[in-house]
Amino acid sequence: MGKLYVIGIGPGGSEHMTLKARAAIEESNIIVGYIKYIDMIKDLIKDKTIYSNGMMGEEERCREALRLSKDNIVSVISTGDSGIYGMAGLILELADEMERKNIEVIPGVTASSAAASIVGAPLMHDNCNISLSDLMTPYELIKKRVEAAAFADFIISFYNPRSKGRPNYLREAIEIIKKYRNSDTPVAVVKNALRDGEEASLFTLETFDDSIVDMLSIVIVGNSQTYIKGGKMITPRGYFQ
Amino acid sequence: MGKLYVIGIGPGGSEHMTLKARAAIEESNIIVGYIKYIDMIKDLIKDKTIYSNGMMGEEERCREALRLSKDNIVSVISTGDSGIYGMAGLILELADEMERKNIEVIPGVTASSAAASIVGAPLMHDNCNISLSDLMTPYELIKKRVEAAAFADFIISFYNPRSKGRPNYLREAIEIIKKYRNSDTPVAVVKNALRDGEEASLFTLETFDDSIVDMLSIVIVGNSQTYIKGGKMITPRGYFQ
Repeated sequence: MGKLYVIGIGPGGSEHMTLKARAAIEESNIIVGYIKYIDMIKDLIKDKTIYSNGMMGEEERCREALRLSKDNIVSVISTGDSGIYGMAGLILELADEMERKNIEVIPGVTASSAAASIVGAPLMHDNCNISLSDLMTPYELIKKRVEAAAFADFIISFYNPRSKGRPNYLREAIEIIKKYRNSDTPVAVVKNALRDGEEASLFTLETFDDSIVDMLSIVIVGNSQTYIKGGKMITPRGYFQ
Repeated sequence: MGKLYVIGIGPGGSEHMTLKARAAIEESNIIVGYIKYIDMIKDLIKDKTIYSNGMMGEEERCREALRLSKDNIVSVISTGDSGIYGMAGLILELADEMERKNIEVIPGVTASSAAASIVGAPLMHDNCNISLSDLMTPYELIKKRVEAAAFADFIISFYNPRSKGRPNYLREAIEIIKKYRNSDTPVAVVKNALRDGEEASLFTLETFDDSIVDMLSIVIVGNSQTYIKGGKMITPRGYFQ
């Protein structure tokens, strides 16, 4: 009888993984994941069989994990939370009734939480996560979401904020937000939060420079109440201060 | 020289805490937190000094933690992620320059991630967190956010969804969402996700019954693409299926 753990390993540094995620990886004999994520946990999986492929091979990876889970203990790994832009959805979409019985989703610390912890406490009030990747979402819908979130004063965390194929989406999103928020609204860029290569920068909507942003960054735009104090980005809990 | 860890312990069950959170708690000689959250980690803190008070004593608790952190190693604990509706914001708001240098925010698995993992993979696309508590946010702004999120097809996770003092807000929020989404849109109610007393129920916007919802629940409303298959709530990753 097999088992399929769908694991969010958190931001990448092994200490920010949950005890449950670590135990499930240790229990598994096969580990499935994108090659860069496998590398992040290499110290934990030295004696295990690895099935790994490139960024675009997600469906193949999931099918292989499901097949192998019939008579193995398999961990499919995502960074962050497996349930937020991770592998949990595709695994459950592809699973048949028998395979579904073996699946356990193990959540992790999502990238926006990790990024927020580095720069202070920007996510203390209502907030949203928006991916700027248009691979599977029409760009018009992405812009509609940015505008709605700006209008309703959500703190906004951008995932996949910028790539070579779409160098201008982030700048366009910031322009939309500027229609609704003061130019001194804080903006954080965090690259590789809580893992090797961590870098964080604070801007305002006015001074924001998107050239330092890449696919591995998270960009957090504060709400109308967010401020910077002593180098920390803080959103107060309420509107009656 | 002291230290102040602001820790998200995750959903509550000790195995869903990160290794870093656990190590910080073990390193601390004083633990500060709301009495119910202290109880969740009681096995970890038997030999430690505890400073605990009731739900409304947050500011007092933070001031005491800051004071104690001058010459102690102190952990302030929140459930979920300390940076999402947790204690990180208030601690940083209240800290003076000296105290701020001792602070380290340690993120955890937030409640919506924990709830999502129980019911399947509902948060696989752009999503938002909205608290229905009006203690520090005008109800008109809360409703504006619900409407904007519904309009722009965000998956919505409601925190603090229902209490005796505001029995109707959740029902009113669901009515707003119904203006924009089909009546068969899935809705999940998860109580005590990944801790003792866990319960999960799946509804649609049409069949939704708010009477089972309390302050310890998370309510997740799917987007226009979310469906239920084999008892699991799944949001596909994209719009081009």
